[in-house]
Amino acid sequence: MDPHLLAVDWGTSSLRGALLDAQGRVLDERRADRGLLSIEPGTWGQVFEQHFGAWLRQWPSMRCLMAGMVGSRQGWVEAPYADCPASPADLARGLCWVQPGRVAIVPGLRCVRDGVPDVVRGEETQAFGALQLLGLTDAILVLPGTHSKWVQVADGRVQHFSTHMTGECYALLRRQSLLARSLPAEDGPLRPADFDAGVARAQQPGGLLHHLFGVRTMALFGQRSDASLACHLSGLVIGEELRAQLAMQAVPAAARVVVIGSDALVARYQRALASLGVEAVTVGAEAGWHGLLALAATIDQ
Amino acid sequence: MDPHLLAVDWGTSSLRGALLDAQGRVLDERRADRGLLSIEPGTWGQVFEQHFGAWLRQWPSMRCLMAGMVGSRQGWVEAPYADCPASPADLARGLCWVQPGRVAIVPGLRCVRDGVPDVVRGEETQAFGALQLLGLTDAILVLPGTHSKWVQVADGRVQHFSTHMTGECYALLRRQSLLARSLPAEDGPLRPADFDAGVARAQQPGGLLHHLFGVRTMALFGQRSDASLACHLSGLVIGEELRAQLAMQAVPAAARVVVIGSDALVARYQRALASLGVEAVTVGAEAGWHGLLALAATIDQ
Repeated sequence: MDPHLLAVDWGTSSLRGALLDAQGRVLDERRADRGLLSIEPGTWGQVFEQHFGAWLRQWPSMRCLMAGMVGSRQGWVEAPYADCPASPADLARGLCWVQPGRVAIVPGLRCVRDGVPDVVRGEETQAFGALQLLGLTDAILVLPGTHSKWVQVADGRVQHFSTHMTGECYALLRRQSLLARSLPAEDGPLRPADFDAGVARAQQPGGLLHHLFGVRTMALFGQRSDASLACHLSGLVIGEELRAQLAMQAVPAAARVVVIGSDALVARYQRALASLGVEAVTVGAEAGWHGLLALAATIDQ
Repeated sequence: MDPHLLAVDWGTSSLRGALLDAQGRVLDERRADRGLLSIEPGTWGQVFEQHFGAWLRQWPSMRCLMAGMVGSRQGWVEAPYADCPASPADLARGLCWVQPGRVAIVPGLRCVRDGVPDVVRGEETQAFGALQLLGLTDAILVLPGTHSKWVQVADGRVQHFSTHMTGECYALLRRQSLLARSLPAEDGPLRPADFDAGVARAQQPGGLLHHLFGVRTMALFGQRSDASLACHLSGLVIGEELRAQLAMQAVPAAARVVVIGSDALVARYQRALASLGVEAVTVGAEAGWHGLLALAATIDQ
């Protein structure tokens, strides 16, 4: 079967490309550790050719859409941010063509609250893909990660979103802070009770900067093992994100939050949301492919 | 004049000792970069002798009291934490004598909230000293730093305290996070408007993990200079500490918060507190000497 679209997710640390049929099934896929951090300026086109040139020559009528940091200022070509509210068609109008008519970069999105901008690159496409997979036009979505993104969609348009530096702060605290001395070298499997205790504590008065110190003192008095404390810390930072986000953006009763991402992280968010009385539905990494397919469909209309 | 007490502040990074008269005036003082981090286990006594041995021989009846990390598990001798509520006399009862009758380490304090302990070592002594200098027996005190300590004193006893990892988190975010790329190599002088904006933003919904990302996006869109952003970030983390602490511990109307510490940091906290409608009175590093003097007085009673 001839592929319908070459979908590329080109982020900070890695490059993934998939040949999709018109239903979003993956016909073939390539991955490489060639993200923004490992690419010399001016060599993006070569890296692209090296990984995907043969596919493009083999199917001369196939388009390629790329999402992620490939469109940032440090990327291949800067694809200026589109403003919210934004539909897939709005994103498609902002496509930045690196090979006219054939290969394009999806723009990121920008929104502003209280005069401070927020930005997203790549997750907006995953959000649209998840909505298509779920048959929804209205939803609250969260995409956990180094920088966790909460996306509010109404009438098929991203109305607003907000970024939390949860994953990055966890890594810094985990590896570089005083707390690192009390934690194991590697994160083990999730210990549900410890994680839940961290999530619960983040809902208590005191604030994150205070609750973090509790990880130190619980170690000092031998109240928890180091593996337990790592899960407690994970619960604390994820719990803080949820506390703050849910205070800012009430989730309507009976609404479900869509959690998109890798299994392990999605499971933690789903668990934390459940402990706060919020039901979650999960979508895996295939969301990105479906988002690019939805964008491609708007070009052809 | 013969000195009344050798007062020593022996912390994580430095060692300070002062010969005090009975009124707390400093007759002579020695400082060295010989804190816990630079001392080999088992050599604390040698370092002490090297810096203060001559003074102790010169005035054979003079006592020496030491506060700070010298009494921690990694210190000279572990001085077990005393429990709250605690008065200066309670602390004195917990003194850990390394030379019986002559040289002692002040214990730290422990308190527990919701099953999670909190600890302090050294700041409790500064708090008592500040109260003596101000003639107070009831106060809320804050000691900013790597780990900021809020201490609540009633009837001359520390009733409770809470630690915020504000300074440590600021340093990590400032130096090691994505935000570091947008900040100058060194912190410049305080830019009041930028600092105030950070404090104000920390009071808005969204939470610290979200507001931090605003530092990145403001840089991305050129909204503030790098020097401005460093002050904004400082305001964000200090503002978050104050938001959380004041939500947990209401400051009574007409009460003033006592801020203890170095000039630059105290000025930031005083400014941030004022912007939240809380008046502050400041006390400098001499608080620690007066605290040790107050402890010494209870031994002689």
